[in-house]
Amino acid sequence: MKQQGELSHYDRQGRARMVDVSGKAATRRQARARAFVSMSPETLARLARNPKGNPLEIARIAGISGAKRTAELIPLCHPLPLTHIDVEARVCENGVELLSSVSTTAATGVEMEALTAVAVAALTVYDMCKALDRGMEITAVGLLEKRGGRSGVWRRNKPCR
Amino acid sequence: MKQQGELSHYDRQGRARMVDVSGKAATRRQARARAFVSMSPETLARLARNPKGNPLEIARIAGISGAKRTAELIPLCHPLPLTHIDVEARVCENGVELLSSVSTTAATGVEMEALTAVAVAALTVYDMCKALDRGMEITAVGLLEKRGGRSGVWRRNKPCR
Amino acid sequence: MKQQGELSHYDRQGRARMVDVSGKAATRRQARARAFVSMSPETLARLARNPKGNPLEIARIAGISGAKRTAELIPLCHPLPLTHIDVEARVCENGVELLSSVSTTAATGVEMEALTAVAVAALTVYDMCKALDRGMEITAVGLLEKRGGRSGVWRRNKPCR
Amino acid sequence: MKQQGELSHYDRQGRARMVDVSGKAATRRQARARAFVSMSPETLARLARNPKGNPLEIARIAGISGAKRTAELIPLCHPLPLTHIDVEARVCENGVELLSSVSTTAATGVEMEALTAVAVAALTVYDMCKALDRGMEITAVGLLEKRGGRSGVWRRNKPCR
Amino acid sequence: MKQQGELSHYDRQGRARMVDVSGKAATRRQARARAFVSMSPETLARLARNPKGNPLEIARIAGISGAKRTAELIPLCHPLPLTHIDVEARVCENGVELLSSVSTTAATGVEMEALTAVAVAALTVYDMCKALDRGMEITAVGLLEKRGGRSGVWRRNKPCR
Amino acid sequence: MKQQGELSHYDRQGRARMVDVSGKAATRRQARARAFVSMSPETLARLARNPKGNPLEIARIAGISGAKRTAELIPLCHPLPLTHIDVEARVCENGVELLSSVSTTAATGVEMEALTAVAVAALTVYDMCKALDRGMEITAVGLLEKRGGRSGVWRRNKPCR
Repeated sequence: MKQQGELSHYDRQGRARMVDVSGKAATRRQARARAFVSMSPETLARLARNPKGNPLEIARIAGISGAKRTAELIPLCHPLPLTHIDVEARVCENGVELLSSVSTTAATGVEMEALTAVAVAALTVYDMCKALDRGMEITAVGLLEKRGGRSGVWRRNKPCR
Repeated sequence: MKQQGELSHYDRQGRARMVDVSGKAATRRQARARAFVSMSPETLARLARNPKGNPLEIARIAGISGAKRTAELIPLCHPLPLTHIDVEARVCENGVELLSSVSTTAATGVEMEALTAVAVAALTVYDMCKALDRGMEITAVGLLEKRGGRSGVWRRNKPCR
Repeated sequence: MKQQGELSHYDRQGRARMVDVSGKAATRRQARARAFVSMSPETLARLARNPKGNPLEIARIAGISGAKRTAELIPLCHPLPLTHIDVEARVCENGVELLSSVSTTAATGVEMEALTAVAVAALTVYDMCKALDRGMEITAVGLLEKRGGRSGVWRRNKPCR
Repeated sequence: MKQQGELSHYDRQGRARMVDVSGKAATRRQARARAFVSMSPETLARLARNPKGNPLEIARIAGISGAKRTAELIPLCHPLPLTHIDVEARVCENGVELLSSVSTTAATGVEMEALTAVAVAALTVYDMCKALDRGMEITAVGLLEKRGGRSGVWRRNKPCR
Repeated sequence: MKQQGELSHYDRQGRARMVDVSGKAATRRQARARAFVSMSPETLARLARNPKGNPLEIARIAGISGAKRTAELIPLCHPLPLTHIDVEARVCENGVELLSSVSTTAATGVEMEALTAVAVAALTVYDMCKALDRGMEITAVGLLEKRGGRSGVWRRNKPCR
Repeated sequence: MKQQGELSHYDRQGRARMVDVSGKAATRRQARARAFVSMSPETLARLARNPKGNPLEIARIAGISGAKRTAELIPLCHPLPLTHIDVEARVCENGVELLSSVSTTAATGVEMEALTAVAVAALTVYDMCKALDRGMEITAVGLLEKRGGRSGVWRRNKPCR
């Protein structure tokens, strides 16, 4: 039997493998994640002056679409029937913060979908601002919370850097 | 005429738009990017003991495949005929470093392809280790260098955080 | 609580968002849609003389395949496990009519899948005949009927134009 | 030798086939297309009152992304390195008009890419308004103009219906 | 009523159609398949000397990813929420054997997913070795076993050639 | 310098890598491949009696579409702007033979695209006939010929098994 906390993507021979969730019941799962695009005050100032705030809106849409493709991008992820994806994008003091929330009713969780959503949204922010500053950085991509499944609720206990 | 350094993804009305590269000649372009997955010493120790080192190899393959899908993920990116994609993954003191290099002969650069490669590779490392530690973070996703095109060579002048 | 008939893709701040169907039970849903490719009698005559009737068959296959990709094309659509997709293509007096029927057992409906099926089928008919006539038009793409879900049966009460 | 105006997607046995453009030089090509989503004044009024005008912006982004996937959706289309895609969405008296413009430097034209862009944008408008009115129709999807290639310029000589 | 053993992908008019599984209950299904890449002893010897055995590992990952895309590749396949995909690759006397196992809880089986997994894995082995020998062949792609569904267990009663 | 005939997908450390074709000129390339679906006389007889011969037509379309997705399926393949894809399907004494021909003007060849075309076409034939006979086998998937590139013409010198 598999021990709690082992690398479940590896079988006994050390080959990578997909976790078998065939025997597990479909239950409601949720995950929330975060990413940050740090940029110079000059770049940020131009972003804020943009009349329609669209870079953030396009990043949100790209993040939502990206979450739906998680199983295509991450080799050992299961394809899941997602019931909700939300991505928020907001201008902070030193950059743009991306927050995602993803839900499903399935036999496995949606942590990777939540992380993929913010990562793709952050890449889109980078793409839309890179003509101003190629030195931007995407930082602090991490899980904030997950709910549901055998291990129940998990919450990040210190903020992302 | 467009001024140097303006947000080229926006037109005069503030609507997001794809940059028109129809008039530009196809020239050789290259970009290199980096990401880091920070993890606890315990998680890292188990990673290193894995007999075949496969998590890194799968992350590399996922990053290469991810780079080919950049234009599907990032709404305003051009589809480009990539001539080379390389992703390196190596175990460092506090986590796993991902490095990418992407090349093309095209009318626009491959910065987003290089960044997408390391982002997808980093997400894959996260996925493969998350049973051990959900608190891992992806940090310091940034461009290291780009070559080719009208603006020539650009190099990051301070290390990613 | 959300009022009947509001734009459910928008939240209170006016940001576009995916409808959250996490709390809804999976029930059987069906939708039927229609599109029309209007073409000149000359183009239509050559279509009809084509010995194997294949343009229609390929359009049907493209429509079925297209329906499966609805959630990739339409940003706020949910990925759904479709249980049946049918596309019919038939030669009429002034063009080619496309009819689709899509079914699922899910927490949300398949109207967009049915519409995407006929739209992709119609684009394929256009593609296969465009060497004869670039002036063809796709018209009257609309929902004919949907069944299942809280709002029950809906039927178009006047024909598409 | 193939006659001008024949169904070039068919070979002599009547089997559908991709047009062979291997011998043709890559030249600059452009195409523009149009679609219309007709809706009731009530639906349109609510659309206009939406504070950020986002439905149109999301439709535009979906159309741009959709154009990049034309060769995946339409079986006999060639994959092309598109150099520009633009989609405009504007509120008219009886609905929303979508206009696209697509460019490439390739051995074949981008008519299907321009048509796919407006079709996907129109489907997205439908999706975002369907909670208000399922009876909307997508009409008048047609090519407006194409430039480049052996047959030169073609322009629609009567308006779409 | 449809007779046992008829070509269920065809309707009465001879048009190809997707099988309608809307009325069927979701039950647990499994399928196993096999493929073989035959190669010369010289090619095989170099494969075996490769220090990390990676060609097989990459083929395995490609096969797992490929299985998830079955419904995109095979026009009349249903999209299914796969709960497990495993691909094994092993060096034999005259080549490389690929074995897959795929599971779901769905209204239809996963035979095509299992076959697609080994086919894509075999193509990847070919790709990685083709610089040494273009004359390799992929042979004996077949189903080994399927379980679940109305027709129950089926097992191949003679070995693949 | 790399020696003729080495496994070019491996670098000196044994990590799999994409071949770098950045320095190579785009020249005209072609490849032809073959696959065979062997089936019982009973299955074959029913296939032949199908009034419209569609299974073969759908397999052809699936093969053409599949070739366009080669770089998504095979991790180390380059995305290429294919200028022609043809797939033939014909009924033989003991099954169905699939033949493909793929062309491009690019810095690398299209062997994998030709092989993917016949493999996907063969899987589609299997899918459409599996209700009659699950014991069918896909055999003899191999390259017939490739032209262009530094190594010039290569032809299979003995028939596939």
